[in-house]
Amino acid sequence: MNMNFRFDIPTKLLFGSGELNRLSELPLPGSKALIVITSGRSTRSNGYLARVEEQLDKAGIAHTVYDGVSANPTLHNVREGAQLARSEGCDLVIGLGGGSAMDCAKGIALAAVNEGDLWEYTWSKTGKGRQFENKPLPVIAITTTAGTGSEIDPWFVITKTETNEKSGIGYPPFSYPAYSIVDPDLMMTVPPMLTAYQGFDALFHATESVINKHEDIFAEMFALQAVGYVGKYLARAVKDGSDKEARTYMALANTLAGFYMNCTSEHSLEHELSAFHPELPHGAGLIMISKAYYRIMAERHACDGQMIKLARAMGMDNADKAEDFITALDKMMKDCGVGELKMSDYGISPDEFPAMMRNAREMGGLFGADPTELSDDDILRIYKESYR
Amino acid sequence: MNMNFRFDIPTKLLFGSGELNRLSELPLPGSKALIVITSGRSTRSNGYLARVEEQLDKAGIAHTVYDGVSANPTLHNVREGAQLARSEGCDLVIGLGGGSAMDCAKGIALAAVNEGDLWEYTWSKTGKGRQFENKPLPVIAITTTAGTGSEIDPWFVITKTETNEKSGIGYPPFSYPAYSIVDPDLMMTVPPMLTAYQGFDALFHATESVINKHEDIFAEMFALQAVGYVGKYLARAVKDGSDKEARTYMALANTLAGFYMNCTSEHSLEHELSAFHPELPHGAGLIMISKAYYRIMAERHACDGQMIKLARAMGMDNADKAEDFITALDKMMKDCGVGELKMSDYGISPDEFPAMMRNAREMGGLFGADPTELSDDDILRIYKESYR
Repeated sequence: MNMNFRFDIPTKLLFGSGELNRLSELPLPGSKALIVITSGRSTRSNGYLARVEEQLDKAGIAHTVYDGVSANPTLHNVREGAQLARSEGCDLVIGLGGGSAMDCAKGIALAAVNEGDLWEYTWSKTGKGRQFENKPLPVIAITTTAGTGSEIDPWFVITKTETNEKSGIGYPPFSYPAYSIVDPDLMMTVPPMLTAYQGFDALFHATESVINKHEDIFAEMFALQAVGYVGKYLARAVKDGSDKEARTYMALANTLAGFYMNCTSEHSLEHELSAFHPELPHGAGLIMISKAYYRIMAERHACDGQMIKLARAMGMDNADKAEDFITALDKMMKDCGVGELKMSDYGISPDEFPAMMRNAREMGGLFGADPTELSDDDILRIYKESYR
Repeated sequence: MNMNFRFDIPTKLLFGSGELNRLSELPLPGSKALIVITSGRSTRSNGYLARVEEQLDKAGIAHTVYDGVSANPTLHNVREGAQLARSEGCDLVIGLGGGSAMDCAKGIALAAVNEGDLWEYTWSKTGKGRQFENKPLPVIAITTTAGTGSEIDPWFVITKTETNEKSGIGYPPFSYPAYSIVDPDLMMTVPPMLTAYQGFDALFHATESVINKHEDIFAEMFALQAVGYVGKYLARAVKDGSDKEARTYMALANTLAGFYMNCTSEHSLEHELSAFHPELPHGAGLIMISKAYYRIMAERHACDGQMIKLARAMGMDNADKAEDFITALDKMMKDCGVGELKMSDYGISPDEFPAMMRNAREMGGLFGADPTELSDDDILRIYKESYR
């Protein structure tokens, strides 16, 4: 456990029921906003877009909408949005939605004020590792889901469909949202299974942070608190979407887990599953591989103390061995109705595992955060054990 | 419990052993620093001043020292320091020391750039409630104690000796320190009894926050974590000042408690004890009155759930009633060797209690944060029960 840490998150967070209604009271950093939403209908049909527009009107801020964001935001989306921001003279970008809308908003905010194509600034195969010269336009992130933590971090993931590449991009500290509004009222209509997938995504952001070998004592506080809330409230939010207390604590768990997103290779392994099979929700993929992933950690006694803390945070007060966390995880999956997810239902085949393993390796970084080094065979074993 | 909260602390925090050595690597917000220290010798004799000067030299930042700060920083100190900052052309203020040095630095940073006398900006009897027109000079707070939390909050307390007034002043969010360095290496030489007093001050910042009727779920997280660390490490730090792990966790507990300083009237009641008897350390005064204060809360079932949380955070896993917190508190006092503190040893007399009660009332604010309303008789009872 690292006893040194830095705390320097510039995002101003407004949390709680009704906070969206206070957007107009903020000292908004701009005079014309580009509101970025997905191409789906829910942001409009749930009235969220109208509410944001009403708040901006109240504050005397002009606005225009970019509503083309895909489920996995693409480089094309970013280009379109940035072009619109420039042609409309927007000096503020509002991401309204789940991770896709918020991520795309962050990308647009950077692309609008930096020369050339955003992709030149990535380190992906076809990127150029170019340095950003200008700070992004200020971003306001308004999340409508409890899962990605994107509202409180400086990173975003963009897909270049032409070359089938995904790249994580950021320009911290400038790419942190200026403001983040986490209002559980906007999450009440998320359907049960999506609630579960998003909740487990938040859970694993936190559990990976706790076992991460670079974890520090401050990040651990946020992560363990998040794990505690997921343990207590996710099943309730899944069973009854109108349970406002459960929705509120899940919103908080998600944001807490987002404060310090110290992921391990569990996330890398999942990203390949959903890269090969885009219809697989990220959270569902994490659920599928998680027990096998943590089982290796437990077998090798790689992080017993941290896994015991996780089990206790999830409510097993007497946990005293690493396996207890896996027991707690298994129980939570059953309680949330996701204990029977099958890779085969999403068309995943064991033949693909070697290619997934190689791709995950190529993406690199996160394997170095694991508390024990995973070999190629270990990775294959995780995939295989998780298959059904 | 308030389920809505804002998180908007702009201070960038560097925490951990050795972090002072990284001061020169920061993008320091100025070109000439006024270093503010107390008139005592320890900041020099422990080598802390020389280390800060060396860091500034390394960063190419000019510097000058104001070393006149009293144990309770005075308006006179602020005037002197601000005058020096102006005449020397300082554009950055560094508070190096305990709460006195950091508080005085915050006052100087505001006084140096705002017209007239700082006292005009207070709401005290002889103040004028004037509004600050200019943002303060940026402040870097480097704490050498684990007690006041001043390094992470926007407030400071200044004494006007001529009229025997104390006033809390601040201009949030601008008066938050720009940077805060919490390096436990600077706390290793604090003597045992001071360690205990400062540690209990941090503890009560946190416990008052937890029972505060305006408490929110985010502030509670910081406060309960602080309580847990004090419970586990304060006695160790008192018994063996060279116990680096204990010092580190106490430094963290103090800073966590400082993040959200939601004090109740316990602090108001103590401030009168030490206002009447300046030789009484603030933390010692809090220790003296705390059990009687929390006993009233327990008797009235004013905040049973929160007091049970506090007791559990202090290590009583099976706590199930409010009184358990008082039991835990009593035990911690004994473990830290402060169970026998006597008001009479500091010259306090029961005759003074009515005047203290009236003064505390006049200071106002914090009584409204108590989870149950305290009458004048209640206050007198707390003082009397605490007397020996």
